[in-house]
Amino acid sequence: MTDYNHRTPDWVKNAVFYQIFPDRFAWSSHVNKPGVFEKWESLPTIHGFKGGDLLGVYEKLDYLEDLGVNAIYLNPIFQSASNHRYHTHDYYLVDPLLGGNDAFKTLLNAAHKRGIRIVLDGVFNHASRGFFPFNHILENGQDSPYMDWFGIHGFPLNAYQGKPNYDCWWNLPALPRLNTENPVVRRYIMDIARYWIDEGIDGWRLDVPFEITTPGFWEEFRDVVKTANPDAYIVGEVPTEAQEWLNSGDKFDAVMNYQLTHAAVGFFGGNHLDTNLADGMMGLAVPQPMDAAGFARRTSELLQLYPQEFAYAQLNLLDSHDMPRFLSLMKGSIDRLKLAYSFLLTYPGAPCIYYGDEIGLDGGRDPLCRKSFPWREQDWNTDLRDTIKEITTVRHAIPALRTGSYEPIYAEGGVLAYLRRDELDTVLVVLNNSDNSIKLSLNVGDFFEDGAELQDQLSDKHCVVERQQINDLSVPTMGAVILA
Amino acid sequence: MTDYNHRTPDWVKNAVFYQIFPDRFAWSSHVNKPGVFEKWESLPTIHGFKGGDLLGVYEKLDYLEDLGVNAIYLNPIFQSASNHRYHTHDYYLVDPLLGGNDAFKTLLNAAHKRGIRIVLDGVFNHASRGFFPFNHILENGQDSPYMDWFGIHGFPLNAYQGKPNYDCWWNLPALPRLNTENPVVRRYIMDIARYWIDEGIDGWRLDVPFEITTPGFWEEFRDVVKTANPDAYIVGEVPTEAQEWLNSGDKFDAVMNYQLTHAAVGFFGGNHLDTNLADGMMGLAVPQPMDAAGFARRTSELLQLYPQEFAYAQLNLLDSHDMPRFLSLMKGSIDRLKLAYSFLLTYPGAPCIYYGDEIGLDGGRDPLCRKSFPWREQDWNTDLRDTIKEITTVRHAIPALRTGSYEPIYAEGGVLAYLRRDELDTVLVVLNNSDNSIKLSLNVGDFFEDGAELQDQLSDKHCVVERQQINDLSVPTMGAVILA
Repeated sequence: MTDYNHRTPDWVKNAVFYQIFPDRFAWSSHVNKPGVFEKWESLPTIHGFKGGDLLGVYEKLDYLEDLGVNAIYLNPIFQSASNHRYHTHDYYLVDPLLGGNDAFKTLLNAAHKRGIRIVLDGVFNHASRGFFPFNHILENGQDSPYMDWFGIHGFPLNAYQGKPNYDCWWNLPALPRLNTENPVVRRYIMDIARYWIDEGIDGWRLDVPFEITTPGFWEEFRDVVKTANPDAYIVGEVPTEAQEWLNSGDKFDAVMNYQLTHAAVGFFGGNHLDTNLADGMMGLAVPQPMDAAGFARRTSELLQLYPQEFAYAQLNLLDSHDMPRFLSLMKGSIDRLKLAYSFLLTYPGAPCIYYGDEIGLDGGRDPLCRKSFPWREQDWNTDLRDTIKEITTVRHAIPALRTGSYEPIYAEGGVLAYLRRDELDTVLVVLNNSDNSIKLSLNVGDFFEDGAELQDQLSDKHCVVERQQINDLSVPTMGAVILA
Repeated sequence: MTDYNHRTPDWVKNAVFYQIFPDRFAWSSHVNKPGVFEKWESLPTIHGFKGGDLLGVYEKLDYLEDLGVNAIYLNPIFQSASNHRYHTHDYYLVDPLLGGNDAFKTLLNAAHKRGIRIVLDGVFNHASRGFFPFNHILENGQDSPYMDWFGIHGFPLNAYQGKPNYDCWWNLPALPRLNTENPVVRRYIMDIARYWIDEGIDGWRLDVPFEITTPGFWEEFRDVVKTANPDAYIVGEVPTEAQEWLNSGDKFDAVMNYQLTHAAVGFFGGNHLDTNLADGMMGLAVPQPMDAAGFARRTSELLQLYPQEFAYAQLNLLDSHDMPRFLSLMKGSIDRLKLAYSFLLTYPGAPCIYYGDEIGLDGGRDPLCRKSFPWREQDWNTDLRDTIKEITTVRHAIPALRTGSYEPIYAEGGVLAYLRRDELDTVLVVLNNSDNSIKLSLNVGDFFEDGAELQDQLSDKHCVVERQQINDLSVPTMGAVILA
């Protein structure tokens, strides 16, 4: 046992993440462009590029800092002939369309100066047809010394026509699988993992890590990464419950918490959910409408699945590049999105805002969930953004909202109330996920002193605790209060 | 006019080059190998790799220095899915099979410490199917911002099946042509040219430069390279007479002097030439047997084609990776090879020894002319190697052999005698390219003082000039003397 096992980075528990799809977030005029891009405002296409880049992200650090973001998860940035860049062409090069390694270095240094961490997307299960070792076989056949880097079943290689005759992800010829059983390939991947940590990144988000089943692979990965930086974050894309990835304490620090997403879609969507759009989301069952009691139960349960150290390091998200925008799942209801973020930002684990969610960007399934960020403020829902910013501010101000307990104390119909407590503070969050305004009387037990005056952190509202009771707390339909 | 035009680097005129085909010269155990290679000793195949690398070259610098080499021309070293590496995959990366950029840096630094310069092979007319901008189009079709980097005539791209529907070299689909009419591509190439000069290389050998006809391209290339290092060497692969590339003084410093090669094959091969093997050599007519008079005329003429500054900077070679080995053209006659090198090393311009020629490595057309260097000394013709080494030593010792005049004074049958003169020295070279030993009496005019004692630089032989005559100079069949 090494001392970085069974532990997760404390900064993650205190982080507010922002997920950026680099081709779509921001475009800088300081990056040399090799040709013509699709219009920034045009709808996403399967193969089209809008030309966002990393100096664009760098130039928007003020915006992100202002929003309360202190960590960025970047979708893949390595050289790749696809707009999402999951088809890696070179693991050591940042895509020239993004500005190359220099642009990334500029971004990383500037982000670090502001206390903003950056986690990269690691795609190690498969590479691409242009990836040098695969291209080497495509060009040289079995004379290539890279033969054992892939599972090759015949020649000529059907890479661009016919049925693929080599191991590839989901039988997609564009995505040849790396043979991680080959020790050379394994070392190759470990070297990449270490290289970028040494370059200063703050962790790896791992694409489809469950596809790599080579014994000891992920344990070694953790060793390599944590030896380079014990504070680096390792978060796997595991949409199911992930005990096998987390509970041994020697693989990942966290997963992308799509189990939480799933529950949130069910609860905040309720009968308003666009079930057609939700169908197939992350390979999970269509979320069923859930009441506050069910949601309280599930959100408590999720914190019990893993040791607390790990439960509090989960990457919590409402949506991502891999599913419809939460706003679209809510059939465009800004109120429901806002309420859901009010929950996400007051729940344990690292909340992750998918770029544009905060200004009301919508979009259905891939590629529509990857629209370009509209930088004209008149296109923003500024009320939504202000609320999210307010709550991130509150979260940063009150440690209990980050590392305190999570204790639902009331769950009826659409109304959920929960405490977040630590030795210093007790916070009461009330969410009214119903179509009616409510006036609520709550028994808060002895969690507050008698006579304590509680202030809503989001409004002028305040109330007084009387004999373990809060009386007549009004919460408008789809409203939230954070009493502290 | 800039001051680096109409001039060529002085170091070239004083250089003895050694051409290395990196996959075949030397293998280092310090380079991590990604898989299995063909056996080093096995015959070359079209697609096979033997696994030579740049640390291998580094480890053989003693050998090269001992041979008298002070400049290396490396066949392509950039990442490429072909054993000859003319299919560039990435212009900024040294092939990982060769040890990557670090291995090259190690070699370059160590070579420079010994006063050995390194010239790289620049392949800018075409790239490869795995080259990122081309692969980008292959993967994304016309949605790729790299569309204008190539001449694309239809989709889907017939890159790996059918007839290529894009501009490619010799209609080979593996070699998509770069569209140098696109200013972005042009700048891309210029940036590469400058980058590697800034990294410390001593010049560029340019592959098929006549294929790039974009106006001003090569003039700009010279500007870029010479601005970065006025002493960098630019030598084009132009097998024909090359007045248009050299006489304006603003493009290349030199060409690979296949015109000289052609004459040498004719003269030293004579009736012993393997004409079948010589057929098609570099796209030139089959060399015809030539007597000493013809050879004297042609070798003089070649020095008149270009301004002297350029004539004395030509890269003079007997063979290369692109033609049968000179030894094989001579049907295995070591004597003829040795005599031809005796000429090459005493003629103006930079002689270039094709790796392995010096120990008697043979081989026919590509790929056979690219055999692995046999490092067991018992496999060497050490007499040949000793002779070549002796002559490089003489060349380095006597400036007239490098930068002096070239004056044939006798050419009868197979016997050629010429002077190399400068203000300090006069050297008389006599080559007996005939089947008989000769005893020669030569009129040397007033080039030597009466009574001067001349010493053969290759043997104990000496003679005295009497009344402008050298009498009874014996030269064995296929022998050479260098009198100074």
